[in-house]
Amino acid sequence: MTESTQLPKPLRGIIPPMITPLCDRDTLDIPGLERLVEHILGGQVQGLFILGTTGEGPSLGYRLRCELIDRVCEQVASRVPVLVGITDTAFTESVNLAHHATDAGASAVVLSAPYYSPAAQPELMEYLANITAELPLPLFLYNMPSHTKVNFSLELLRGAMDLPGIVGLKDSSCNMIYFHRALRMIRRHRPEWSVLVGPEELLAEAVLLGADGGVNGGANLCPQLYVELFHAAAAHDVDRVIQLHEQVMELAENLYHVGQHGSAVIKGLKCALSCLGVCDDFMAEPFRRFRALDREKIQTALRRMDFIGQKPMVGPEAR
Amino acid sequence: MTESTQLPKPLRGIIPPMITPLCDRDTLDIPGLERLVEHILGGQVQGLFILGTTGEGPSLGYRLRCELIDRVCEQVASRVPVLVGITDTAFTESVNLAHHATDAGASAVVLSAPYYSPAAQPELMEYLANITAELPLPLFLYNMPSHTKVNFSLELLRGAMDLPGIVGLKDSSCNMIYFHRALRMIRRHRPEWSVLVGPEELLAEAVLLGADGGVNGGANLCPQLYVELFHAAAAHDVDRVIQLHEQVMELAENLYHVGQHGSAVIKGLKCALSCLGVCDDFMAEPFRRFRALDREKIQTALRRMDFIGQKPMVGPEAR
Amino acid sequence: MTESTQLPKPLRGIIPPMITPLCDRDTLDIPGLERLVEHILGGQVQGLFILGTTGEGPSLGYRLRCELIDRVCEQVASRVPVLVGITDTAFTESVNLAHHATDAGASAVVLSAPYYSPAAQPELMEYLANITAELPLPLFLYNMPSHTKVNFSLELLRGAMDLPGIVGLKDSSCNMIYFHRALRMIRRHRPEWSVLVGPEELLAEAVLLGADGGVNGGANLCPQLYVELFHAAAAHDVDRVIQLHEQVMELAENLYHVGQHGSAVIKGLKCALSCLGVCDDFMAEPFRRFRALDREKIQTALRRMDFIGQKPMVGPEAR
Amino acid sequence: MTESTQLPKPLRGIIPPMITPLCDRDTLDIPGLERLVEHILGGQVQGLFILGTTGEGPSLGYRLRCELIDRVCEQVASRVPVLVGITDTAFTESVNLAHHATDAGASAVVLSAPYYSPAAQPELMEYLANITAELPLPLFLYNMPSHTKVNFSLELLRGAMDLPGIVGLKDSSCNMIYFHRALRMIRRHRPEWSVLVGPEELLAEAVLLGADGGVNGGANLCPQLYVELFHAAAAHDVDRVIQLHEQVMELAENLYHVGQHGSAVIKGLKCALSCLGVCDDFMAEPFRRFRALDREKIQTALRRMDFIGQKPMVGPEAR
Repeated sequence: MTESTQLPKPLRGIIPPMITPLCDRDTLDIPGLERLVEHILGGQVQGLFILGTTGEGPSLGYRLRCELIDRVCEQVASRVPVLVGITDTAFTESVNLAHHATDAGASAVVLSAPYYSPAAQPELMEYLANITAELPLPLFLYNMPSHTKVNFSLELLRGAMDLPGIVGLKDSSCNMIYFHRALRMIRRHRPEWSVLVGPEELLAEAVLLGADGGVNGGANLCPQLYVELFHAAAAHDVDRVIQLHEQVMELAENLYHVGQHGSAVIKGLKCALSCLGVCDDFMAEPFRRFRALDREKIQTALRRMDFIGQKPMVGPEAR
Repeated sequence: MTESTQLPKPLRGIIPPMITPLCDRDTLDIPGLERLVEHILGGQVQGLFILGTTGEGPSLGYRLRCELIDRVCEQVASRVPVLVGITDTAFTESVNLAHHATDAGASAVVLSAPYYSPAAQPELMEYLANITAELPLPLFLYNMPSHTKVNFSLELLRGAMDLPGIVGLKDSSCNMIYFHRALRMIRRHRPEWSVLVGPEELLAEAVLLGADGGVNGGANLCPQLYVELFHAAAAHDVDRVIQLHEQVMELAENLYHVGQHGSAVIKGLKCALSCLGVCDDFMAEPFRRFRALDREKIQTALRRMDFIGQKPMVGPEAR
Repeated sequence: MTESTQLPKPLRGIIPPMITPLCDRDTLDIPGLERLVEHILGGQVQGLFILGTTGEGPSLGYRLRCELIDRVCEQVASRVPVLVGITDTAFTESVNLAHHATDAGASAVVLSAPYYSPAAQPELMEYLANITAELPLPLFLYNMPSHTKVNFSLELLRGAMDLPGIVGLKDSSCNMIYFHRALRMIRRHRPEWSVLVGPEELLAEAVLLGADGGVNGGANLCPQLYVELFHAAAAHDVDRVIQLHEQVMELAENLYHVGQHGSAVIKGLKCALSCLGVCDDFMAEPFRRFRALDREKIQTALRRMDFIGQKPMVGPEAR
Repeated sequence: MTESTQLPKPLRGIIPPMITPLCDRDTLDIPGLERLVEHILGGQVQGLFILGTTGEGPSLGYRLRCELIDRVCEQVASRVPVLVGITDTAFTESVNLAHHATDAGASAVVLSAPYYSPAAQPELMEYLANITAELPLPLFLYNMPSHTKVNFSLELLRGAMDLPGIVGLKDSSCNMIYFHRALRMIRRHRPEWSVLVGPEELLAEAVLLGADGGVNGGANLCPQLYVELFHAAAAHDVDRVIQLHEQVMELAENLYHVGQHGSAVIKGLKCALSCLGVCDDFMAEPFRRFRALDREKIQTALRRMDFIGQKPMVGPEAR
């Protein structure tokens, strides 16, 4: 067990949602995982989020989730806070994962709505009240309606501010009106909460207008791009923001639309990391890695994008 | 371990989706469970389906799910086939549950689409191909798009007909055009599949027009009503069907719309069973049992509905 | 001006939603229209509904809509009631159309929710109260949420029962649970209302379980099939119902899924009528008639389906 | 007939979507209309958009729409370009309105997807090709999927770039990822197009990251707030942008959430303009003005918000 890092309040900056390197559906790619963690931490990120949507958390068996928590916490060794996704349809499994994360030395847990039977807002409020009472670690709320079918409404957020242990909101709704409204409410009532945005295409505007940072999938690949964009936006350097936002959009355009389905983003990221030699691109069901044709497109895109970042996108160990 | 019952092909009749009697979120109400199983089997049903949506399957921890499988299989003791819901976001956990169900003596498993990251149809087809290769028991496909966000398209069903081990379709889409189209396709290509309808309000028409039966929540409460309706519809006795369909609608109107949210159906069922003394009505998060006011409405409705069935709704032990 | 037909209460049977024969986007195919009206009336239908969804009502200019109303009312000459769709986003245009329909001798109007800005249920209730006060003809409510984005909720229907002039409900929601619940409520409080189902795949079960009939697109093509199915279902002759329902499903399978988009049903119908020599298949924007390849598929399907009906599908004038 | 203003390419700045002052459902509030136009133009806006969603365009009869076009064009008298909404379900009515707008001296028309029968993307592309060939004025595409059920996909936009007469895109999807992707594509291929954002809560970020301006409902009330925000964002003055964005959010929070339904935004705007003495707040069906209680809330909010803008919110003529 590692001692957990002190969590800054608010946590600010880029906290990449790490993809999970796999050899097959129940086996971690351990050397790939080690390379990936170092690659990401090398980008000066301010935290690491595992077992989220990008990390295929819900697609992984519990044994493997626990192994991943252990390995990542050990390797990170308190260099940055580790946040662990515990979203589940079963209350008891979420709590079990939270305890495992505590023992492993994680700094916080991240929780979205239970995602099978859609709960109404009052039900969700009771759920949050019940589960915050059981959690041994600080909690980030994770608004992800495209996957959970349920929104954390502003009224629910207002109620959640009176619950103990919550330290922030990660919003992946892609709805910036919601985001601005939530941000204003949180700043007024819980200024110590961290307000983070999920989709990287929205990082620039979120931080320019006051957010604390982003949980952006592309930071698996080139963490320094998002870290730089965060700093430029926090410094109100709009010219630089536009330049970096353009690179973020270019990367997304090139890598996230090769696949035909909703899974295209994670598939593109994993494939790119595999092409760069960082880790295996095996995906747990219901998805699977790109076949040769799509992989070739990712390869071509990576060659075309050597403009991204002043530094090489990944260190020598990955070449 | 119990010897599993031979599964008729096709399985025809009423296979109630059993609610899960709980004392609290991780504890079965064991005496209630025993009464409930006997109560349901007393209605001459043709099978028992556990750990479905009505059974709050995805809201229960894995330890409890396994305990439930064991206890139900043991108590049923091959009087009827036991079907076990194994739908999960994690492939490995579905397979684990299926093996547990096999060891316990269940007759079949029931699987819907993984319900966190929505899979496209070709991805879902691969998922089915992969998982049918790993399953030790016959499989019912369970179409439940309101909860999984993903439909089993007709094209996917056509493809699934070439996979081994599938024995039927349970459709809870509430879309009778889909149902009729699926039924025609299955009758042509896989006449031995069982085609079952979920919502009890649709049982009459489904069976009149050729379906094999229903997986209807209300059969927890008064199984003989649905069994009679099934037989009347299978016998093309429209006058009797209309009479019983009217009772089914009356029961639904009275018990399933007391709550305000999507959870109203299961809450109403559990509350009614509790009022009748069959079992506890505790619900796992994200839901909770009705409070006093709603419980009183259910009580009143139950008194008003003593017309249902010629026999008492539940046996003497529940009064 | 023609004297309007007395409207039976309730109106029972098949009331085909007539497609609108066009030569181009603002010109009726007048000989085709005359043949089509006779072809449909030849099938012993109980009414004729023009300017509905199948009739491309909202896609047609107002001048043309008025011309169509005039011509159809004149030709039908009170042989059956003519129902006129007046759904519009603008209250005043709906009322204008209703007055035109009255002057032309129509028997009733059909109204769905205004379909641009989605109204909430209390707003919709006020809308209905306001417009029923202005309408000179009996009104059928038309529930069509896929196109209007707004459902006529059961609570709204209950309120609408106290408004003057409403004589029925046409439900095209494809949701048979809603349908059964609405039917029960209407039978109890407004037994003189006519309850009709839109999708022809649902005609059999709707009438078997008590509905008054159908407004089914396929009745443009072979009205007698739907009329026979209606009579068989009303007579509780399940064996005959299954036989005819099978033909309805076969027709839908063959003709309504040739196109790739939501427009496939109307395109298939218009193309089939054109292949059979009844009328032109021009479609108003945003749609357009099938090109040669899809037309060939419709031709082939029509040849394959000569089993439908004992009588030739269309009379000698159309060959 | 007025000579139309030359339309700048691209049109940049704030183009308020004017509400339509009404005395009743078919009568303009003419003095109110005159005050409103002057009030808005007094805010140094760069154009005026009538008959959009905020203008209740689709809820108004055609006679009234034409009267409004005439009166507004005459009063504006080429001080700024007038843009006229012509979105309709009937192709011919859209074209009729466009000709009327041309004759009245409007500068451009604005068109969304036909909004009754949802068209697929290839159908929508053909629709655009057909209608651009018939339009006598430059065209802005208006992406409004919440009301039309249909998105202008990026692929469709790419195709539309080869059609004649299109000069810009107004996006009200509330989806900033879509917005950034569309903006990049347009900048590359049609730099002369104007790219405008609808929701005012998104104006700051849209312009900071390169958009040409906004079509923001709140500019009916205090046009100078949005004009200032536009200029601050265009000048990359982030501190000032944050200050003004905060005022925009405050106004929205106070005025747009008094009503319970989707209509709350327009109702709030019209009510506020009525409270300030600018014009009547009658609304066409399916909506209706706020009743006394909600009006009182708007009054209170207006008193609380006297901080907005250095100048009085409306000039002396409105008091």
